Amino acid sequence: MGQAIASLAEDRYFDLEPGQKEIALELYQQVRDLPLVCPHGHVDPRMFSDPDYDFGTPVDLLIIPDHYVYRMLYSHGIALEKLGIPRLDDAVVERDHRKIWQIFAENFYLFWGTPTGIWLNEELRLVFGVESELNGEEAQDIYDQIAEKLTQPEFRPRKMFETFNIEVLCTTDAASDSLAHHQKIGESGWTGRILPTFRPDAVVNHIHKPGWRESIQALSAASDIDVQDYGGYIRALENRRAYFKQMGARATDHAALAAYTEALSSREVDRIFQRALQGEATEADAVRFTGHMLIEMARMSCEDGLVMQLHVGSERDHNLVHWQRFGPNTGADIPVTSEFTHNLQPLLEEFGRNSALTLILFTLDESTYARELAPLAGFYPALRVGPPWWFHDSFNGMRRYFDRMMETAGIYNTVGFNDDTRAFPSIPARHDLWRRASANWVAGLVARSIVTIQDAEAMVKDLAYGLAKRAYNLD
Amino acid sequence: MGQAIASLAEDRYFDLEPGQKEIALELYQQVRDLPLVCPHGHVDPRMFSDPDYDFGTPVDLLIIPDHYVYRMLYSHGIALEKLGIPRLDDAVVERDHRKIWQIFAENFYLFWGTPTGIWLNEELRLVFGVESELNGEEAQDIYDQIAEKLTQPEFRPRKMFETFNIEVLCTTDAASDSLAHHQKIGESGWTGRILPTFRPDAVVNHIHKPGWRESIQALSAASDIDVQDYGGYIRALENRRAYFKQMGARATDHAALAAYTEALSSREVDRIFQRALQGEATEADAVRFTGHMLIEMARMSCEDGLVMQLHVGSERDHNLVHWQRFGPNTGADIPVTSEFTHNLQPLLEEFGRNSALTLILFTLDESTYARELAPLAGFYPALRVGPPWWFHDSFNGMRRYFDRMMETAGIYNTVGFNDDTRAFPSIPARHDLWRRASANWVAGLVARSIVTIQDAEAMVKDLAYGLAKRAYNLD
Amino acid sequence: MGQAIASLAEDRYFDLEPGQKEIALELYQQVRDLPLVCPHGHVDPRMFSDPDYDFGTPVDLLIIPDHYVYRMLYSHGIALEKLGIPRLDDAVVERDHRKIWQIFAENFYLFWGTPTGIWLNEELRLVFGVESELNGEEAQDIYDQIAEKLTQPEFRPRKMFETFNIEVLCTTDAASDSLAHHQKIGESGWTGRILPTFRPDAVVNHIHKPGWRESIQALSAASDIDVQDYGGYIRALENRRAYFKQMGARATDHAALAAYTEALSSREVDRIFQRALQGEATEADAVRFTGHMLIEMARMSCEDGLVMQLHVGSERDHNLVHWQRFGPNTGADIPVTSEFTHNLQPLLEEFGRNSALTLILFTLDESTYARELAPLAGFYPALRVGPPWWFHDSFNGMRRYFDRMMETAGIYNTVGFNDDTRAFPSIPARHDLWRRASANWVAGLVARSIVTIQDAEAMVKDLAYGLAKRAYNLD
Repeated sequence: MGQAIASLAEDRYFDLEPGQKEIALELYQQVRDLPLVCPHGHVDPRMFSDPDYDFGTPVDLLIIPDHYVYRMLYSHGIALEKLGIPRLDDAVVERDHRKIWQIFAENFYLFWGTPTGIWLNEELRLVFGVESELNGEEAQDIYDQIAEKLTQPEFRPRKMFETFNIEVLCTTDAASDSLAHHQKIGESGWTGRILPTFRPDAVVNHIHKPGWRESIQALSAASDIDVQDYGGYIRALENRRAYFKQMGARATDHAALAAYTEALSSREVDRIFQRALQGEATEADAVRFTGHMLIEMARMSCEDGLVMQLHVGSERDHNLVHWQRFGPNTGADIPVTSEFTHNLQPLLEEFGRNSALTLILFTLDESTYARELAPLAGFYPALRVGPPWWFHDSFNGMRRYFDRMMETAGIYNTVGFNDDTRAFPSIPARHDLWRRASANWVAGLVARSIVTIQDAEAMVKDLAYGLAKRAYNLD
Repeated sequence: MGQAIASLAEDRYFDLEPGQKEIALELYQQVRDLPLVCPHGHVDPRMFSDPDYDFGTPVDLLIIPDHYVYRMLYSHGIALEKLGIPRLDDAVVERDHRKIWQIFAENFYLFWGTPTGIWLNEELRLVFGVESELNGEEAQDIYDQIAEKLTQPEFRPRKMFETFNIEVLCTTDAASDSLAHHQKIGESGWTGRILPTFRPDAVVNHIHKPGWRESIQALSAASDIDVQDYGGYIRALENRRAYFKQMGARATDHAALAAYTEALSSREVDRIFQRALQGEATEADAVRFTGHMLIEMARMSCEDGLVMQLHVGSERDHNLVHWQRFGPNTGADIPVTSEFTHNLQPLLEEFGRNSALTLILFTLDESTYARELAPLAGFYPALRVGPPWWFHDSFNGMRRYFDRMMETAGIYNTVGFNDDTRAFPSIPARHDLWRRASANWVAGLVARSIVTIQDAEAMVKDLAYGLAKRAYNLD
Repeated sequence: MGQAIASLAEDRYFDLEPGQKEIALELYQQVRDLPLVCPHGHVDPRMFSDPDYDFGTPVDLLIIPDHYVYRMLYSHGIALEKLGIPRLDDAVVERDHRKIWQIFAENFYLFWGTPTGIWLNEELRLVFGVESELNGEEAQDIYDQIAEKLTQPEFRPRKMFETFNIEVLCTTDAASDSLAHHQKIGESGWTGRILPTFRPDAVVNHIHKPGWRESIQALSAASDIDVQDYGGYIRALENRRAYFKQMGARATDHAALAAYTEALSSREVDRIFQRALQGEATEADAVRFTGHMLIEMARMSCEDGLVMQLHVGSERDHNLVHWQRFGPNTGADIPVTSEFTHNLQPLLEEFGRNSALTLILFTLDESTYARELAPLAGFYPALRVGPPWWFHDSFNGMRRYFDRMMETAGIYNTVGFNDDTRAFPSIPARHDLWRRASANWVAGLVARSIVTIQDAEAMVKDLAYGLAKRAYNLD
């Protein structure tokens, strides 16, 4: 990329009409330096429990852990082995990180116009001070620059956390997790706020698969409650939620293929649970059980006050051979059509009118924004809508979200931004993109006389900071 | 809201590029003062049959009857009882309308950027002459101003109808309605045109529910035909259609969860009808019967010339407890995915090629605009597409509609605007928003050299006035 | 239409902000005159095998073969018989082409704002030199001008092919086609490249219908392999693919209602095939067989290198009476909801990771762009996404495509443009619209500092020319 990008123009990404752009810039400048609130994401807490945590090479940091990056290279026929992505069978993969970096740099044009391209460009420039273009010619020079930075104390995670001005960062942790790293952080004297999030997917979903019973054993061990029946299971979950809450958790997180909910009778759920324990549950049992447990989790949230997040619509591990070779979370998750109006009805019948619950919905199916999510959130006190997620976490994705969600939901039924990333150094770029996108959208409302500049200032501050903080009780 | 909104800038809502905006303004000014044609809505005819009809307090006028308003307040945890919304069980609700108004005003920020916010702001300023911002501080002052206006003769509905420059307003009336208010209006000497619309949903849908048999009795009584079998039912419907037509009706209106149609054999339909009369119909019967009756209604429209409107895709009364407490049409209707291509095929097979039929389709699923509705309307002579409906009746909703519908359907397979409202004083603001949105869209075509300014002038006039008038035979 | 259109402003269709427009124009000018690469379409090869091919009257050229045109007129109640569209029963239709042209001209306003309106306007002006507006008054004059041109040698197809600067044009041909016209073109000494495309739909789809067995006989005859079982069928298909390839084919093309794929066991597929031969296959058999054959075709593509195109989501012949009267491809095909994530999984499980395959997906359901197609193409090496198709081949359709597809797929998982038309003289206008739309989109990226002007130049060239050429191996 050339000069315009290198300079990272202060008015980048904004709409072009000068009047609107001026307002956008003014609004953006009011929120640009606000602390980052990160209520949902997948950063590894280990980074912060070890004060000397070392990111490794530029490839260890920027390529190998980031499926956004390597899936695009793979889609053009570059074998993942050549990018150093570890295989589950321990087959040999490329270990020369300079070679990997060279391939990445030579193919960086694949990212033109993509959010990954934007984030990487901003990271290289703003975090690592790179000034030249990433391409085949400059590749090794840039590698050297980053590698050199990574040896400096300023590039330890705790220090970067502070430099990034992160006010709080929530991780995502299994129900049976000991939260040892969170504990260690808490005891270390370091003041960065790293909070856990309770994610019980492993014990709630796929009860017909062998992995579930292993997860139940882990749950038994973690809770010190021997899970032999549904009652014990519920007690164990409540025990773990209490522990997470005590460790600072503000929220739970749930992933499901569909938003399907169903209130099972206690007799039905007991039987299904027994079948699962005996390895005899069917796929249909699993779907109904997950649907039941989402309602049960809403009940628990009403009681313990943990915010409930529901991420719906990703068909995980779309390709079996790929999954066998590289495992989950390696770029092969593909969205599907989602439905909320019918699916959530049982849950909302029971808890939707209850303000003690905050249920935040995330979708990968944008056709649900204006059709289902905004109308639902614009009625039910318990409902809020999360920001554009995953493939839609992009400037256009945000623009479509503002366009289709806000007229019916209003911004106060939404919860600001979360970065949802495992790529720690991309966090500032991601929040900055959201702050620009929201300032740009609100500026359009001002310029078209839909809101006043005074109201607009309140709106951008809430979108950048206040909404996330309040929705997740992060005060 | 602040100064820019207070002044209601003449160029409000338009796109910002100066060249396009100038064209938009010029086009808008040509249609701004055209009479309002209101071919579909839910205004109560009672307002016009009683020359002294009194709207009550500002809360009676603007909050209690408008679920667009109170659902948003409710979504933030404000109990409907506190807003004075009547409960079916006659439990006590707030009666102090000044208190209700105060809550509304303090929470008016929830409507920032929403169409309801725009309409309310315009109503307050343009209908009631309010000049200050609606917020907690100004609330009681503004209440006084509105209340004072409502005592004046200019604020009787008939007078407002004239002030609003409404050329014709169609109500929506049950098949068994006596149309007594329409009759009284007709006999009163007042020249405002208030026409009925035939809506037989109560006798066509949900034949498996107890309410249906009551509706059949009402139909028998109204038609003076004792409905004992399907033949009598059809005669009774034809009788009522004839009566509505004689009373000035131009159209029928049909609501259904899905656009499903199916031509039942006379034997099948007879049997299903008998089961329904005996209270033995199933939900599957009900779905098939509605699907059959839509075709039957298309047949009748071919014969009597009444335009047929079909509103599809709202899951009514999404929350049972809420419905038991507050009844229907209280904010809990949520859209669902819709399908037209397969569902309408049986109806279109029989009547789609027939120009004697005008079937106007309304959807809450915008993904059907470019995928199904525009291609269908761009082929079948009988089909037209209605304007953006309900949650999509907004500036962005209109923009998306123009964007996705017009390239394939052309504007002449659409039918202009209808306000579809029960909030009578919001009618001018709603039509004005459409006129601005359509002028804005057409100006974009001119500025990008897609249509000439001469053609554009014809287009905006038809979008604002001519299309609705011709589609509904309102000459 | 008036002056602005008549002059065909050089900056037509572009976004209006002057900075962006200047960049767009600059980028457009770099690609405006590049040769046209037409890798997929329905132009009749006969036009080029006969050096003296005569288009007939203006109505023969512009109306009768173009269902985009006559379906719109029909949707407003103009009988197709009055437009000279031939009936299958040989009933009399209008033969006076001047009368037909008059109707067309008087109703040309129906095309305001539509892509058909844009293409026709450009054709009339740029191909036929018409300078006045098409309307009732000018109709006969314009008819004369076009008719006069059509007598000139410059308006023979081969000459127009050269004038249009077409580098290569691929036709679409049945599996049993002898490709006699392609052969004749090849032997004629004329250097225009007209390549066949292998489209086996007639022998792959609808095995439960009588037409299938006729198609199998044609396949037997063409391949000289007597198809008596599934093995013979596969050999016959491979034989034909080899012949097509030898005749210059670069690709196959497949149409299906859904993207459903399923790997049948050889026993199952044998049985289904036998049932089909005996006229006993069911509709369910047909769906499964098509799903199986798509996988089989992917396998063959891996072997012979033919690019595989899949067009999904058109419900063909929506109205039975219309179809009986006028046959297929006469305007009554209507899109339906499509699904790719689940449906393509079996095919992608087997061949998705294989770079030897290029599978290009086309959809009529834009909701799949960002939800399914971009995420799939951004992962699987074998997948590419085709340009906006049919009803979405329009300026807004392209804008939505760029908006929703590119952030996740990147432009290099797309394949540029194809015109997909049977309306030969509309080809330059269609490519020009794409070139304008893509220059406009890329200019927006430059103006918002997302890509540099250097990268933008590469992008527009690839979008206009390089991507199509490389994806279809047209070097």
